[in-house]
Amino acid sequence: MDTVVVKVTGKIFDDQEALRRFVDVVRELARERRVVVVAGGGRVAREAIEKAKSLGVSSNYWLDEIGIEASRLNALILVASLQPFSYPGVPRTLGEVMHGLAYSRVVVLGGLVPGQSTAAVLLEVAEAVGAREVYDLSATDYVYDKDPRTSPDARPLKVVQASKLAEWLKAGQVPGDYALLDLRALDIAARSRITIKIASYKNPGNLIEMMRGGNPGSTIIPE
Amino acid sequence: MDTVVVKVTGKIFDDQEALRRFVDVVRELARERRVVVVAGGGRVAREAIEKAKSLGVSSNYWLDEIGIEASRLNALILVASLQPFSYPGVPRTLGEVMHGLAYSRVVVLGGLVPGQSTAAVLLEVAEAVGAREVYDLSATDYVYDKDPRTSPDARPLKVVQASKLAEWLKAGQVPGDYALLDLRALDIAARSRITIKIASYKNPGNLIEMMRGGNPGSTIIPE
Amino acid sequence: MDTVVVKVTGKIFDDQEALRRFVDVVRELARERRVVVVAGGGRVAREAIEKAKSLGVSSNYWLDEIGIEASRLNALILVASLQPFSYPGVPRTLGEVMHGLAYSRVVVLGGLVPGQSTAAVLLEVAEAVGAREVYDLSATDYVYDKDPRTSPDARPLKVVQASKLAEWLKAGQVPGDYALLDLRALDIAARSRITIKIASYKNPGNLIEMMRGGNPGSTIIPE
Amino acid sequence: MDTVVVKVTGKIFDDQEALRRFVDVVRELARERRVVVVAGGGRVAREAIEKAKSLGVSSNYWLDEIGIEASRLNALILVASLQPFSYPGVPRTLGEVMHGLAYSRVVVLGGLVPGQSTAAVLLEVAEAVGAREVYDLSATDYVYDKDPRTSPDARPLKVVQASKLAEWLKAGQVPGDYALLDLRALDIAARSRITIKIASYKNPGNLIEMMRGGNPGSTIIPE
Amino acid sequence: MDTVVVKVTGKIFDDQEALRRFVDVVRELARERRVVVVAGGGRVAREAIEKAKSLGVSSNYWLDEIGIEASRLNALILVASLQPFSYPGVPRTLGEVMHGLAYSRVVVLGGLVPGQSTAAVLLEVAEAVGAREVYDLSATDYVYDKDPRTSPDARPLKVVQASKLAEWLKAGQVPGDYALLDLRALDIAARSRITIKIASYKNPGNLIEMMRGGNPGSTIIPE
Amino acid sequence: MDTVVVKVTGKIFDDQEALRRFVDVVRELARERRVVVVAGGGRVAREAIEKAKSLGVSSNYWLDEIGIEASRLNALILVASLQPFSYPGVPRTLGEVMHGLAYSRVVVLGGLVPGQSTAAVLLEVAEAVGAREVYDLSATDYVYDKDPRTSPDARPLKVVQASKLAEWLKAGQVPGDYALLDLRALDIAARSRITIKIASYKNPGNLIEMMRGGNPGSTIIPE
Repeated sequence: MDTVVVKVTGKIFDDQEALRRFVDVVRELARERRVVVVAGGGRVAREAIEKAKSLGVSSNYWLDEIGIEASRLNALILVASLQPFSYPGVPRTLGEVMHGLAYSRVVVLGGLVPGQSTAAVLLEVAEAVGAREVYDLSATDYVYDKDPRTSPDARPLKVVQASKLAEWLKAGQVPGDYALLDLRALDIAARSRITIKIASYKNPGNLIEMMRGGNPGSTIIPE
Repeated sequence: MDTVVVKVTGKIFDDQEALRRFVDVVRELARERRVVVVAGGGRVAREAIEKAKSLGVSSNYWLDEIGIEASRLNALILVASLQPFSYPGVPRTLGEVMHGLAYSRVVVLGGLVPGQSTAAVLLEVAEAVGAREVYDLSATDYVYDKDPRTSPDARPLKVVQASKLAEWLKAGQVPGDYALLDLRALDIAARSRITIKIASYKNPGNLIEMMRGGNPGSTIIPE
Repeated sequence: MDTVVVKVTGKIFDDQEALRRFVDVVRELARERRVVVVAGGGRVAREAIEKAKSLGVSSNYWLDEIGIEASRLNALILVASLQPFSYPGVPRTLGEVMHGLAYSRVVVLGGLVPGQSTAAVLLEVAEAVGAREVYDLSATDYVYDKDPRTSPDARPLKVVQASKLAEWLKAGQVPGDYALLDLRALDIAARSRITIKIASYKNPGNLIEMMRGGNPGSTIIPE
Repeated sequence: MDTVVVKVTGKIFDDQEALRRFVDVVRELARERRVVVVAGGGRVAREAIEKAKSLGVSSNYWLDEIGIEASRLNALILVASLQPFSYPGVPRTLGEVMHGLAYSRVVVLGGLVPGQSTAAVLLEVAEAVGAREVYDLSATDYVYDKDPRTSPDARPLKVVQASKLAEWLKAGQVPGDYALLDLRALDIAARSRITIKIASYKNPGNLIEMMRGGNPGSTIIPE
Repeated sequence: MDTVVVKVTGKIFDDQEALRRFVDVVRELARERRVVVVAGGGRVAREAIEKAKSLGVSSNYWLDEIGIEASRLNALILVASLQPFSYPGVPRTLGEVMHGLAYSRVVVLGGLVPGQSTAAVLLEVAEAVGAREVYDLSATDYVYDKDPRTSPDARPLKVVQASKLAEWLKAGQVPGDYALLDLRALDIAARSRITIKIASYKNPGNLIEMMRGGNPGSTIIPE
Repeated sequence: MDTVVVKVTGKIFDDQEALRRFVDVVRELARERRVVVVAGGGRVAREAIEKAKSLGVSSNYWLDEIGIEASRLNALILVASLQPFSYPGVPRTLGEVMHGLAYSRVVVLGGLVPGQSTAAVLLEVAEAVGAREVYDLSATDYVYDKDPRTSPDARPLKVVQASKLAEWLKAGQVPGDYALLDLRALDIAARSRITIKIASYKNPGNLIEMMRGGNPGSTIIPE
């Protein structure tokens, strides 16, 4: 049975309508496939990290742990709403993801370890389950060649090579928080030849479209 | 070494100043004592539960699990800010609390199991560690004999018998969400003869005062 | 697939004939359904607790832990006799019950946490798996309106409202150890609208009868 | 700090007076040493195994698991009565024993894995913690050269070589259930050169005497 | 569904061709059966133990733990090469083996606990899963009646009684490291009446032949 | 108490003399400090990965898991040789490292998760324990500005900025497998301002020298 691996931005947890439609899409998919969802931390993560900082916490280890825990809270909301298809817990390791998939249709997780983006988690899960393609319902519509917030001439890209995107990231041309993907994620995509498709979380139907071969946002090819 | 067992309302996580002072108080206490803190879920829990409900989750089991996970996120913020005194994780069972205390000065937890208030957790921890007295930095200043929100003649009580309070609770005279204590918590207090002192979270110094024998809020005696 | 949730009194472990028939009934049910069995502690629990007390253990936490461990020993006897249908272990958390059900037909557990009756465990499991009805093969035949051991005029009740029973419990009219149900269990039944059917463990066939809509003992309706 | 490793027969759990004195001895020892206690299953184990057999369980794996669980129930009684010195749980692996010793004075366990006598557990713990000598408060006073129940000329032995005892065991001259030690235990004693001292559980003070170099029962030397 | 229980000598991990054919055989078997493979430690174990010894480690507990860890590394190589049939991890307890079998076709493990041969593990797994026959792809072709390395007149045995072999082992006539089986393994075989078939690992097809009733090496009957 | 965080190349496990001296150095340090050692996989990892590949395993997830397991075997050799100072197991998560440090002087680990170099593990541990400086006993003596194997004009660097080294790595001027550090490790060093000192594993005394402020190899400053 095929396994769909998808990441959803933490932003969706503040958009009730999009969230509801996303759950519907996953439930629909779970009829015929296995689905792994990686949930971002979003506002809850940001607020919790802020609270810790205001208490004097400066250790990136602990700030990351807090962010991860927040993403797990988001993941648990999905777990509950995807019963009885979903593995009844939020895996904390890749190994647990693999176990979960052995007997559940749907597995939902948040972050895994400090110092790792959820984009990297997305690619690691894909590598572990042997997926050739992953989907990212992200906070932006497209991957751009420059930072669109500061460069009026930034162009959205329908298709981009992973190596090219990595180059821009290294050169600081596209900031990591905007490119949605860090070098770690691109590295895994490259080494295991995984295609990444990105589209806006605002239309969860994008996931279906991407799975059917469409490209409503951007496609990053492992070259 | 004595073990101080204290619950802090989830509300404190939205009151930066009170939160900071609470952390200072616990850090101070940890110099000479062991401290167990039970953190409430507060706003984060309420919001996460609302999101799940809006997705159609009606199972109280799952709603409780989500609330518990939120309280653990709050607990983790305290864990991080209480390093290196704190056990480096949020215990998920009473057994883990006991293990944590065997080698750390401070242990912070959230909820433990579905269908159990954090007040009940507070009393269970007290029973497990053998504490004779517990402290509740709560959202209200006092225990009242009636619901002060609806009864203008409600009187704050400096001292009240657990059996009397249980009676009022059973009769619905004091609503559970206001009395801060449910029957389960009162049952444990009664069977293990544990005194409960309640005071407002807004002044975390109340914890020190209560420990020294003072009674800035209400005292519930196990009779 | 439906999930049958049933509690069996610890007394059955001292009644070889009833125990054997109970195992047969569960094995039969497991052909077409999932079954969760909550086993009581019975004589083994009582004796172990007595030994601990005679050694000076007065902590209710530890006495409860010992009682729980005894109920797990009883549960393990059922696990062994229900192979290969049964999950090959005794779950220690509700989460583990859920996991077990994801790949085994039968899950058997004992108590879960200190300070919680096995009746409460029964209802919590029901809530977690979404059961609308639970069965209690108990040490008595019926729920009574008074303590039948002391009140000659106590009447067995075929049907009783949970709220009514809760009232009697609170008033001490029916002692908790006789009513078979504590307030905690009734609370969960009420909040998740779960019907409780009670019948004597001496005739394990009662379980089948109750499942088919019969009422060989008492029925507690969540009103 | 030295670690005392002692096994106590399950029989002691039916001898309130001996049990109480044993707990006193361990508590006393814990002031200056680490102590590991291996508890036998005794009557509780035997009865639970009988119940399983009467339900048709014939798998030695499951019967052993039940016996182990019973020994853990006995161990938990000791854990509770040895608070706050004791590790607050019953270890299920040698690794957990080692962890427990890293921060607790006393660790109490029962059996570990199916098909292994508690005598073998005793020796494995000794090997793991590096003890040169172990103590067995056993159901008999001495090791005999023949089965004393059937051979009137059986002689109690003050000192016996492990190799000699192994020989007798292999030849069936001393039945395993009487010799108290199986070949597995003797193997470990031999390979790690550990002396085994055996004395009656009826006088727990024997433990102190053996530790001081005395030999109130039998000594098995690793030769 | 039947469960095939097979041990493979650690030597096979240094024989690429045999290893590849063994994996093929297991994959083939997994189509219609469950398979449990117990992997030996082989050269990796020996080398790691040597390194530890050269660092002064003399504790048999730690040397065994290192050997077990090495066998787990071998097991993991098989796990990876048997995806997606294999349980995605290396079980560390018999209980975990049982869980793994509940939802995976293939489970691969190495050693379990210190002081236990992988032959004993083989028999314990057989007992746990209820297998009547186990297979040992071993470093030698046959069981001999004497040590063939030192006794020119040693005869290979096609069929041998477990009791007879045990006798020879006890008498030192066949050294344990050559007989491939220790007394512990023979004990379990005897008590649970399990037949052991041994054949050379060099021809993994022997496994199929043994399963079909053939006897390409030696058969040890539980008498 | 200070915590020394050091990585040692897997190569040292094939250099008996260096390994022995390294163990002596750590044992010495453990008298006054906490020490965390991250062990590389070395030859054992390479060989195990080769075996898996020859069996057709192409998934980077599984190849990484095998490499990690091999590094854990190396770590366990150190754990055994560093008794009784060392935490008696090999942590599998950063959280477990933190727990281990709470009650043991020495903690030894291997890799943690797939797709992460042991250099990255080194930095993550440093971040978690709050170390300002880490030590890498590596396979080479110095960090070079080019690949010394192919560029005769490569210069060893006594001091280099992390940002400069990252630049070279990105440009492919220094291959990752030679620079000993990947971008992930440099990222963490940068964000938490951790200095990295590298020196040859052949002289384990380098560790002491680096701790005392010396620079026998190269120092990478977080700028």
